Amino acid sequence: MNRLRNSKIYLDYTSATPVLPEVRRAMEKYWSQDFYNPSAIYKEGLRVKEEIKECRARVARALRVAPNGIIFTSGGTESDNLAILGLFEASKKKLKQPHIIISAIEHPAVVAAAQEVVRRGGKMSILEVNEEGIVSVETLKDLVKKNTFLVSVGLANGEIGTIQPISKIGRFLSQFRKEHASIYPYLHTDASQTPSYLNVCLDSLNTDLLTLDGSKIYGPKGIGILAIRKGVKIHPIILGGGQEDGRRSGTLNLALVSGFVLSLEKVQQHREKELLRLEVLRQYFIQSVCKCLPQAIINGAPKNHLPNIVSVSVPGILSEFILLKLDQFGVMVSVGSACSLDGRVSGSPVISALGKKDLAESTLRFSFGRLTTLNEIKYAIKIFCLICNYVIK
Amino acid sequence: MNRLRNSKIYLDYTSATPVLPEVRRAMEKYWSQDFYNPSAIYKEGLRVKEEIKECRARVARALRVAPNGIIFTSGGTESDNLAILGLFEASKKKLKQPHIIISAIEHPAVVAAAQEVVRRGGKMSILEVNEEGIVSVETLKDLVKKNTFLVSVGLANGEIGTIQPISKIGRFLSQFRKEHASIYPYLHTDASQTPSYLNVCLDSLNTDLLTLDGSKIYGPKGIGILAIRKGVKIHPIILGGGQEDGRRSGTLNLALVSGFVLSLEKVQQHREKELLRLEVLRQYFIQSVCKCLPQAIINGAPKNHLPNIVSVSVPGILSEFILLKLDQFGVMVSVGSACSLDGRVSGSPVISALGKKDLAESTLRFSFGRLTTLNEIKYAIKIFCLICNYVIK
Repeated sequence: MNRLRNSKIYLDYTSATPVLPEVRRAMEKYWSQDFYNPSAIYKEGLRVKEEIKECRARVARALRVAPNGIIFTSGGTESDNLAILGLFEASKKKLKQPHIIISAIEHPAVVAAAQEVVRRGGKMSILEVNEEGIVSVETLKDLVKKNTFLVSVGLANGEIGTIQPISKIGRFLSQFRKEHASIYPYLHTDASQTPSYLNVCLDSLNTDLLTLDGSKIYGPKGIGILAIRKGVKIHPIILGGGQEDGRRSGTLNLALVSGFVLSLEKVQQHREKELLRLEVLRQYFIQSVCKCLPQAIINGAPKNHLPNIVSVSVPGILSEFILLKLDQFGVMVSVGSACSLDGRVSGSPVISALGKKDLAESTLRFSFGRLTTLNEIKYAIKIFCLICNYVIK
Repeated sequence: MNRLRNSKIYLDYTSATPVLPEVRRAMEKYWSQDFYNPSAIYKEGLRVKEEIKECRARVARALRVAPNGIIFTSGGTESDNLAILGLFEASKKKLKQPHIIISAIEHPAVVAAAQEVVRRGGKMSILEVNEEGIVSVETLKDLVKKNTFLVSVGLANGEIGTIQPISKIGRFLSQFRKEHASIYPYLHTDASQTPSYLNVCLDSLNTDLLTLDGSKIYGPKGIGILAIRKGVKIHPIILGGGQEDGRRSGTLNLALVSGFVLSLEKVQQHREKELLRLEVLRQYFIQSVCKCLPQAIINGAPKNHLPNIVSVSVPGILSEFILLKLDQFGVMVSVGSACSLDGRVSGSPVISALGKKDLAESTLRFSFGRLTTLNEIKYAIKIFCLICNYVIK
């Protein structure tokens, strides 16, 4: 992999990951050589179709669903929209004013799709989180109604790294469905941030739908999947030639598909090793920062968290200023979800949801990845503490 | 460019084009090197954002619209859906039962999106075509109503190559809007098949919205644009982080974006030369086939057609059988739009719409492109005539 230029230190793996060299090589032949339309019926077209079928089977194997439970999309945002709006449109036949529940710290794609549900005549409830960012099944019980068609809770939050009790939520919803003799509510989880560290099998998570995104797992941007448990019906949001069993039309880019599959397999393969390696770096980071910045607050859950995200609030600092200073010293970090930065509110809604509104603009996210080393971490800590201490004085 | 293996002859450029080598090279650096999230605010993120801005400006220049009139999507299918469903949702505020008119020979993406309009409570009318596949403004006049929000007619048909009088339709609609003091109806044209041969500037075409697709212009699959004239408001179909001015959320793949832009510029640059070169091949093809297969019928418009598509009906043949035979002899062609082949009706709906229902299953499409040579054409004609004459006897 090309090392980062000028030995800059990239600590923003949560917003984008570089494509692995082997993934790039795997995609290569599909641009100008095996470029055929997978819907064509001559040998070359059929071969391309067959390769897509194999890719689909490999993803299905990794997530333990049936191959037709994998829908390739243009990315995590589309997958979240397809899960939420696709199920909403399908549920309208059976439910009056279908109701969705999302957690208070969901990705903007989930939030905006749920708002669209409301615009189209549905209802929405927000499942609050505790100060660690964790939702509780008890709170959920008070919100679930007979017309609830979906509960959407991200497997792990991309800003603070908190892991949710998805499997437990799934068990509760499954019981609710049995008790009410209904197919609803389903459970959807955006697991985009997690395949490098967690098990993302639908069965283990007791989830009905699951979102993944290539750009978060060292694969290409512009590709994602929505995995769906057998029997769950959705209405398409992009219609046309009837690809993906009519659930997502449009010619597939086999280069991106093959890149996605390989990157998913690769991160899953190194999952346990990377989890341990990064957790050590994370602990080191937290301890060092808390030592030199005693006022620093580490957000998220001490127990249930991703190993590669540290969310730090430092009362009194303005995070964007610190970020730009860090950038001057060659350290790239983020103030939160990159997706919420397009000309909108400043300050993190996730941090606010933790009950720390006063820290929403004083919080930075450091996120680590495959190329992150202890030396990089040490340098980043040093610079970060220097800048903060300088600002605070 | 990698030549086609085993000297096979590819005559299906309308369903997919190989990525130009220079386009592939232009995309290269964005996979593992400049992979940053364009929403990040450190220098590298801003640089990526800046490059997207430049790409957008280049597309805008090519189509003569304002840069914010370019929305990057995952391809032509999504662009068509965004135009139709996006406008429909926006128009519901002003119109009762918004009404859409599409031609009888539209791409499945347009047809399916228009059907979705009906499912959501709107109305649809079909604008019939004559035996050459051309729509008439006179017929359109009878269909346009006060609640018509959109007329969607493809600039050129991907199956028979017929070019529509889009500019004339645009002038009529513009006058209708003035007379009724309304912002509706808008005009949308799917121009995916045309940038290699025709002028696709929105102004010249008098169109309000225009779809393009990377995979039809020697660029990558998985990327397209919807170009929108200033002032036209649409509601997003994929919601989230608010990218593309809130009209299409999801992290952009700069590799695909840069590949799309370059391929568009390249095909536009060689437009006139390729138009002439391929028209000569087309005439040669038609004359030769009609000589050895006197019963052959060339579909489409003798005057207004793309230079790279020949649609041939041969009464009494079964096109899929001929296609597979041609494939055995190393010639790749298609029976129509690849997109309508996913496990659905056999027989071309486009040919049926021309009033030739009896020929719908006896029609093949030969489509030429940048690498097509006279020798390839000669060989294809020879094999095609041999097979047909053998079958008919």
